[in-house]
Amino acid sequence: MSELRQNLVTRDWVIIATERAKRPDEFTQHNKPVTQSPAYQPHCAFCLGNEDASEVELFRLGDRHQWKVRSVLNKFPALSPVGESDIKVEGIYRSMNGFGIHEVVIEHPCHNITTGILDINDVADILRAYRQRYGEIRQDPRIKTITIFKNHGERAGTSLEHPHSQIAATPVVPPQIRNRIAEAIQFIDDTGECLFCRTLKDELAASTRVVVESEHFVAFIPYAALSAFHTWIFPRRHTSSFDDINDAEILDLAYTLKTVLAKLYYGLHNPDYNYTIRSLPTNEQSTDYFHWYIAIVPRLSYTAGFELGSGMYINTVTPEDSAEFLRHVQIPKSPVCTNEVEG
Amino acid sequence: MSELRQNLVTRDWVIIATERAKRPDEFTQHNKPVTQSPAYQPHCAFCLGNEDASEVELFRLGDRHQWKVRSVLNKFPALSPVGESDIKVEGIYRSMNGFGIHEVVIEHPCHNITTGILDINDVADILRAYRQRYGEIRQDPRIKTITIFKNHGERAGTSLEHPHSQIAATPVVPPQIRNRIAEAIQFIDDTGECLFCRTLKDELAASTRVVVESEHFVAFIPYAALSAFHTWIFPRRHTSSFDDINDAEILDLAYTLKTVLAKLYYGLHNPDYNYTIRSLPTNEQSTDYFHWYIAIVPRLSYTAGFELGSGMYINTVTPEDSAEFLRHVQIPKSPVCTNEVEG
Repeated sequence: MSELRQNLVTRDWVIIATERAKRPDEFTQHNKPVTQSPAYQPHCAFCLGNEDASEVELFRLGDRHQWKVRSVLNKFPALSPVGESDIKVEGIYRSMNGFGIHEVVIEHPCHNITTGILDINDVADILRAYRQRYGEIRQDPRIKTITIFKNHGERAGTSLEHPHSQIAATPVVPPQIRNRIAEAIQFIDDTGECLFCRTLKDELAASTRVVVESEHFVAFIPYAALSAFHTWIFPRRHTSSFDDINDAEILDLAYTLKTVLAKLYYGLHNPDYNYTIRSLPTNEQSTDYFHWYIAIVPRLSYTAGFELGSGMYINTVTPEDSAEFLRHVQIPKSPVCTNEVEG
Repeated sequence: MSELRQNLVTRDWVIIATERAKRPDEFTQHNKPVTQSPAYQPHCAFCLGNEDASEVELFRLGDRHQWKVRSVLNKFPALSPVGESDIKVEGIYRSMNGFGIHEVVIEHPCHNITTGILDINDVADILRAYRQRYGEIRQDPRIKTITIFKNHGERAGTSLEHPHSQIAATPVVPPQIRNRIAEAIQFIDDTGECLFCRTLKDELAASTRVVVESEHFVAFIPYAALSAFHTWIFPRRHTSSFDDINDAEILDLAYTLKTVLAKLYYGLHNPDYNYTIRSLPTNEQSTDYFHWYIAIVPRLSYTAGFELGSGMYINTVTPEDSAEFLRHVQIPKSPVCTNEVEG
């Protein structure tokens, strides 16, 4: 018989559907390794040497022609940093200008690399870029939320191969985020504990859903994971905003994030996935009830009419089996990417 | 510049992203017409004559060997109608048995037909089956919500070609539904009006987003549609539960639903889509604040890390352009499906 589990952070219910159960290895994809692409693509605006083809640069780690990570304006921005950010109300209709910031973090000069097979120091550089831009963007008081996210692969919403992630800053706090915060406040009011600290403590004690532990972070499959291999990375230190991360934690998070993504890459053959950093809205910096974290969601199945209509989810592999499978994936030594610009 | 719009029913914000704007006809799909499949498939458990291959029958319109619509247990049910429905709480973990009902409505004896090209009387039979089963299932006091939904095409979550929809009944009310109800209560408390009746009145007055009107129903693109061609069908009569629908309304809804789906089928070349009927949880029958309706969501783009992280959406075509495009799609006369069982 199936089991229903509730996610305490979102109150979402998920059906762990054992009648449709799959073994974790049945989720193995048929995607090609990213290393089958060339290291340099003449027409890729994100490749080293093609900097003039990309939009305005907002941030760079390294030299102009020997950079490690760059951030540029999105070529087709969903939001733009000009104009008013007031809500217009006309009867039942509420609207605003599309004010905000939408940029692309070019994660590496090489075209044929991805986080799961990068060196840890290169992953740390990406995280440093995130921290820097997060801290800069939040200075604008019109900005309310900053979403850092990555789309890897077509089912995750991108057709661009070159490794990149995105930062979107919006002038509203969406209800999804307000609801999570309300749940966290309710929990601390009821128990005196941070819901996330308590979850971390209990997941470490249970240990069956833990994928990888490091000094400052723990990666685990949530008890009520909404889909197969859905993974959370929690900082052990209670802190609400991602940009509070310190240098030692950056390095340690680079190890943890890379390890989880490497296990997905090698264990499931380069699956499409999204990740996002869930941080407090930027009009607050520090609370005792909210705790930032990373959610990684491999795109291995489609949500359908059931999820649309009921707001519930169906997961065909147990979180415990997902975690055990990932714990056992061996990670080979990372390939070397040498990107030599022609000419 | 883009525009942000808020959906008053869910409080969701959507970015109407004009910088990425597409013309509605750019969403045309390359799917084959369903009529290219044979009318009868020997190995399809849902085809006329193959009744023994499907699971236990729960409902049938018509004779055993000349039926119009059937409902059968799902072969791989996510939920099963035995056992306890109590919530178990162990520390922070909440779970229940996978109690519930999960059935398949086989919409027509023919394999190569779909709602958008069916005769209106056949669509009315599907709706009659929904109403009948909805009324029967809600008799069980352990059931809290009944979700009727359709998955058409692979991106909508099905690989089964034979026209079918599903009914899932669960012993919980998920937060997505609780939140919609809370918004509706807030609105009536603030204004004295049903949010849905008011929306209908204002959409009819504006008329720019209306796709099709009939005596009892109105199909329109919501002001803050989350994705391209996302369509709502509202009953004009205020009623909270789908099973309150009367015979005249059934026939009229069959016309409206078929017309919208026909416009998608012919206008966008048989796109994948989901629809769902949003009705009040079954522990209540009638309220002044909630109004049942149908949501139709064509699957023309993928949600990605931005939606995951921010809880906001990006729609690359304006609701007004979507509606105008659909209004102008001409619907040819329906093809005739003759299903002759071999042997």
